[in-house]
Amino acid sequence: MSVAPWRSPLARALHNNRALPYARYFQLATVGANGYPANRTVVFRGFLENTNQLQIVTDSRSQKINHIQHQHWGEICWYFPKTREQFRLGGNLNLVTASHTSQGLRDARQIVWQELSDSARSQFAWPEPGVARVEDEAAFSPLPSDREQPLPNFCLLLLEPIQVDHLQLRGNPQNRWLYQQQSPDQWLKQAVNP
Amino acid sequence: MSVAPWRSPLARALHNNRALPYARYFQLATVGANGYPANRTVVFRGFLENTNQLQIVTDSRSQKINHIQHQHWGEICWYFPKTREQFRLGGNLNLVTASHTSQGLRDARQIVWQELSDSARSQFAWPEPGVARVEDEAAFSPLPSDREQPLPNFCLLLLEPIQVDHLQLRGNPQNRWLYQQQSPDQWLKQAVNP
Repeated sequence: MSVAPWRSPLARALHNNRALPYARYFQLATVGANGYPANRTVVFRGFLENTNQLQIVTDSRSQKINHIQHQHWGEICWYFPKTREQFRLGGNLNLVTASHTSQGLRDARQIVWQELSDSARSQFAWPEPGVARVEDEAAFSPLPSDREQPLPNFCLLLLEPIQVDHLQLRGNPQNRWLYQQQSPDQWLKQAVNP
Repeated sequence: MSVAPWRSPLARALHNNRALPYARYFQLATVGANGYPANRTVVFRGFLENTNQLQIVTDSRSQKINHIQHQHWGEICWYFPKTREQFRLGGNLNLVTASHTSQGLRDARQIVWQELSDSARSQFAWPEPGVARVEDEAAFSPLPSDREQPLPNFCLLLLEPIQVDHLQLRGNPQNRWLYQQQSPDQWLKQAVNP
């Protein structure tokens, strides 16, 4: 797999916004079984090695999981405040649990777990998210979780972009490009009106 | 209509993040006729007077319009970098065009138009968005657009939240609340696990 042509402007945006830690956050939209969209902020965890797939981490107890099983398509909206540009990345979501059939992806899941901060890891040992608050504060205390082996509810989530919409608000006029995957190694790049 | 209980923490977040102009941007997720989610950054234009409805502006030539006609539910994800908190606001989308049946909403559309900056207004006179780039730069030159009367393709888009999920990443442990509308003037507020 060759590096997709939208990777170069995205890498530039990441570099130019590196002073802002939250420039590595983006919003992921999915669709629920009820047909309604859902939208939440997640953290970019780099690209899966030798691919153009974006890595995200999630909890098997989160709402996203049902959504992905219902509708495999997701769209990331990634806004970079300093350079005033937006990437919209739409494509297939692939959930990697401990029982995924691919050994390579199970290994990738473990590597991402090992690269998390202690506090990020400890959240996977917290009580079930989204249900009535557990009042016992100790339940949320960072645990000395295993740095080697992921907790069973830890999931790696991959988004493989099929289309990318890059908008630069700076410049007069603004600039916008659409990238569409034609085949695994072939992308069509088109300048469009902003 | 009384002011919803999530308005107070949201107003506080807006105030505490006021030094960041992009803290007034959020991501709006919709669903297309193909069942796929779409996600884009939009600008918060305040609340519709005497309501809890968030105002957004959009172009009748944009992709969103078809989406809303297909699926009226949208979800806003609003991340505040300085205070490290997120609001997810899900609810009904209501598109206000020049021919909307409500005189009050047509008036609101005109007021929002008048409050836009000249450069924001001029974008509604640009060539059709998302299609092959018009090479004539003059087509994107700011026009002396009418400040009084909106261009026909200018739309006011309202999102009326039915459920709001407020997550504070600061604090140990994190805090999260769900607000659910029970009836027009009644909201259920519940502390949930982050």
